[in-house]
Amino acid sequence: MSQTTTMKLLTIVTENLLKEQIITLLKEHHITGFTISRVEGEGSRGVRASDWEGPNLKIEAIISPQGAEQILERISAQFFDNYAVIAWLSDVAVLRGGKFAQPSQSKSS
Amino acid sequence: MSQTTTMKLLTIVTENLLKEQIITLLKEHHITGFTISRVEGEGSRGVRASDWEGPNLKIEAIISPQGAEQILERISAQFFDNYAVIAWLSDVAVLRGGKFAQPSQSKSS
Amino acid sequence: MSQTTTMKLLTIVTENLLKEQIITLLKEHHITGFTISRVEGEGSRGVRASDWEGPNLKIEAIISPQGAEQILERISAQFFDNYAVIAWLSDVAVLRGGKFAQPSQSKSS
Repeated sequence: MSQTTTMKLLTIVTENLLKEQIITLLKEHHITGFTISRVEGEGSRGVRASDWEGPNLKIEAIISPQGAEQILERISAQFFDNYAVIAWLSDVAVLRGGKFAQPSQSKSS
Repeated sequence: MSQTTTMKLLTIVTENLLKEQIITLLKEHHITGFTISRVEGEGSRGVRASDWEGPNLKIEAIISPQGAEQILERISAQFFDNYAVIAWLSDVAVLRGGKFAQPSQSKSS
Repeated sequence: MSQTTTMKLLTIVTENLLKEQIITLLKEHHITGFTISRVEGEGSRGVRASDWEGPNLKIEAIISPQGAEQILERISAQFFDNYAVIAWLSDVAVLRGGKFAQPSQSKSS
């Protein structure tokens, strides 16, 4: 009945200066389609709060569930200690056979 | 105990030029409230990648679970083949009796 | 195996004029990190439709599941009757031990 399949929406909010580094990381995981929007960060999270305030980028990509947590961990390992970056995953339903081919990542379900 | 009810967040990322067509489609499904924001699309998805890059619109609406997949399929059938459009559904919790009246779509649960 | 923990993404779409009041409310709940982006509201929801159209703010914060619905209810009680405000919660997965300390709200799981 359902025509949809569950994918992950990866959302990254980051300082502007990390844009290219994060896009490079995503492409290493075969994520070649994403959107970028501008957001203002406010408040403190305890870590480099001063960097958090001001212009930030929000990067969003629909990715395969396989490997999604691994990408989250790479972002964390590479950026969380020294930059104002947060990232999260959420479940989204897309139409089966949509535009979300995930080469080499969907060997098991 | 829970005061919330589950609705669907419909997200559509589209080329600017489809704005009016998509809004018309939404209104045909009695979706009259939504937000629009600007995003930059980047990268390729295999289908008309050149169109994907550059300014895009993100349209978001809270809709009834009933009929949500049907709307997704209409968007797909109407636009996916020829335009840079992606769309997905996610579960969101809103307060019961919120501002999300869905006329004529909630006959069954 | 999973390195992630489930948090709530709180999303509020509001008229610009409520920005400071909503931020004050969030801070009363120890939510000190959030992003703000500009969205255009369109259409009507039956309640003050004229206010809904035009520039709006989207405020997003990752918050602890504990107390999340309570915050939603406060936003509702304080603003829904008289302003063009909508708010919802969704589940997101973040890395355990991320930048989302929630003082005084996580006594029970």
